[in-house]
Amino acid sequence: MKHLLFPILPAFMLMTGYAPAAAGQTVWHDPLDSAATGAGANCIQGRGFAQRDYARLPEPAREIVRDAVWGLSRNSAGLYLQFTTDSPDITVQYEVTGGHTMPHMPATGVSGVDLYNGRGERCWGDYSFGSPITYSYKGLPDTSSAATYTLYLPLYNTVKRLRVGTREGASFAFVPADTTRRPIVVYGTSIAQGACASRPGMAWTNLLHRATGLPTVNLGFSGNGRLEPEVIAYVASIPAALYIVDCMPNMYVPQDSVYTLVLNAVRQFRQLRPDTPILLAEHPGYANRRTNAARHAEDERADRAQRQAYVQLKKEGVKNLYYLSREEIGMPADGMVDHIHPSDYGMEAYADAYHKAVRKILKLK
Amino acid sequence: MKHLLFPILPAFMLMTGYAPAAAGQTVWHDPLDSAATGAGANCIQGRGFAQRDYARLPEPAREIVRDAVWGLSRNSAGLYLQFTTDSPDITVQYEVTGGHTMPHMPATGVSGVDLYNGRGERCWGDYSFGSPITYSYKGLPDTSSAATYTLYLPLYNTVKRLRVGTREGASFAFVPADTTRRPIVVYGTSIAQGACASRPGMAWTNLLHRATGLPTVNLGFSGNGRLEPEVIAYVASIPAALYIVDCMPNMYVPQDSVYTLVLNAVRQFRQLRPDTPILLAEHPGYANRRTNAARHAEDERADRAQRQAYVQLKKEGVKNLYYLSREEIGMPADGMVDHIHPSDYGMEAYADAYHKAVRKILKLK
Repeated sequence: MKHLLFPILPAFMLMTGYAPAAAGQTVWHDPLDSAATGAGANCIQGRGFAQRDYARLPEPAREIVRDAVWGLSRNSAGLYLQFTTDSPDITVQYEVTGGHTMPHMPATGVSGVDLYNGRGERCWGDYSFGSPITYSYKGLPDTSSAATYTLYLPLYNTVKRLRVGTREGASFAFVPADTTRRPIVVYGTSIAQGACASRPGMAWTNLLHRATGLPTVNLGFSGNGRLEPEVIAYVASIPAALYIVDCMPNMYVPQDSVYTLVLNAVRQFRQLRPDTPILLAEHPGYANRRTNAARHAEDERADRAQRQAYVQLKKEGVKNLYYLSREEIGMPADGMVDHIHPSDYGMEAYADAYHKAVRKILKLK
Repeated sequence: MKHLLFPILPAFMLMTGYAPAAAGQTVWHDPLDSAATGAGANCIQGRGFAQRDYARLPEPAREIVRDAVWGLSRNSAGLYLQFTTDSPDITVQYEVTGGHTMPHMPATGVSGVDLYNGRGERCWGDYSFGSPITYSYKGLPDTSSAATYTLYLPLYNTVKRLRVGTREGASFAFVPADTTRRPIVVYGTSIAQGACASRPGMAWTNLLHRATGLPTVNLGFSGNGRLEPEVIAYVASIPAALYIVDCMPNMYVPQDSVYTLVLNAVRQFRQLRPDTPILLAEHPGYANRRTNAARHAEDERADRAQRQAYVQLKKEGVKNLYYLSREEIGMPADGMVDHIHPSDYGMEAYADAYHKAVRKILKLK
């Protein structure tokens, strides 16, 4: 898909002081260090709150959501940093709390970072997956002090002690989240969380972020996108441009229950957000649905129930409610690594479908 | 890309005897067991010789090619088994000699297998990456004894003691390689070997195999597709429908040397194969060529030299020599996992470009 340029930077940009450094030394910048970034500034983008960590739900949620959801919310999926620097070298160093890899998703996707410049062009860094993990970008051609970068954080791991290193004497500033622009907020499953992108930039939510230029919040919870009221309460608490609800692959309940869950979910959103557009997405279809009869029945059942709920809600007069069908998602037959998780090829299909739908709903160019 | 149906099976198909088995037991079939498959039958497809292992160069090459090439030729990239069975369950079990994973390529691609049915539809099996590695396919709907499967072997590992398990009482036969049809023979680098497909079926050579229905031989050697005469001698020794030479990403030599290497390579092919079509492919372009000036210069230099050699060879009257340009490959900006290795998204672009070129050269429908 084509990528728009990143939007013009907000005027408010906090400069870090330069720590004294010996010749040739790397100067390190910690986005959680409020002395460096300005007290109260939120440099961790892609979420609905400010907090000194790389998590996707705020501390008070710990007592409210199920343990599985809470645990997954520690993963940094969809979080990103933006910064400006004229340094020709950028080093990113951090630790993670989980295993580096999964059998069907490489370390670069589970635990890696992904750097794009202000024109949406990807940078590539040599990496080493030790403790800490290090990505080292060299020979970057943008040496204007206004050169902006977006750094996507790991999709399936929990980040600790992250720091960004630049060359001694180079300019550097983290860009705080622009709280004046309402984000696209995505509530979903492992697919929305990013499995199995080869690197963070290829999760469909991050592809959508680059395509639209809108802030995007990833609340995908692997195996746990189950339309639970206590999670929806948090999702709906974020003032959004659009809510995307993409939970059908985690409907491990009978068809009647799916119907009720969808009805209740939309009604719950509407109580707090009477007008914000909501987009319900169908199941992409199991990759092995043609070679396993049980799978076929399973994914069709969830979609049937959600579609009934959608029709019922429209009948009740619910406005700004949209629907993304399996046909519109258009997952290619070879788009998944296993039975359900898109590779980068499938992620592109997802992102294209969402971009098309979002452009229409939000009347973007 | 669209997949043609697999071709009609050759009439000659060897049936295995049924070993006595207790009720519910799995019956195992070893493709290297000549008692089971018929003496002299070659059930390991995707290579130019018959040998009782899962390697890509025959034993005599050990003394001829460099150690690095020899070592990589032990990897089973592009090899595949075909078999017919009416079993609703298929288990594949094997051991590997190398590590299961790479940081930028998951275990499912490095060490996994990939099963497609006779209509080109993918089957999905639960896997466990222990020793042995096991893939377990269940609920397969094809229960005719003519139901055919293609099993692609690991891309970046060396396979030992592989066996295919079917349900007791089910029919089973390995399909021997059809030596009457000339294959597409690919000589290349890590990309041709399959890095970094998420699973074997997504390596572009295997995508091309399914798209054309032609036997395909993968002689991609990671970091070692260097146009060496002793390797070309082996590549050219296989009677082919088409030779694809895709070595530009491994040209770690000055521009003059690339020019000479390409000239000599084509002349060497022509000595043994005066008429067989040869397709020279350009470098796909480094993924970070816009964000690293050195990379930019490097990939353009190799292409420039090869193009000069191509023009020179055409001038000398070499017939059936074709060229696939970087523009025709059309690697998307986000098509790679690192600086040079395509994800499944990039592999699809590669396969589409090759399929288009091959269809034209071989006048396929």
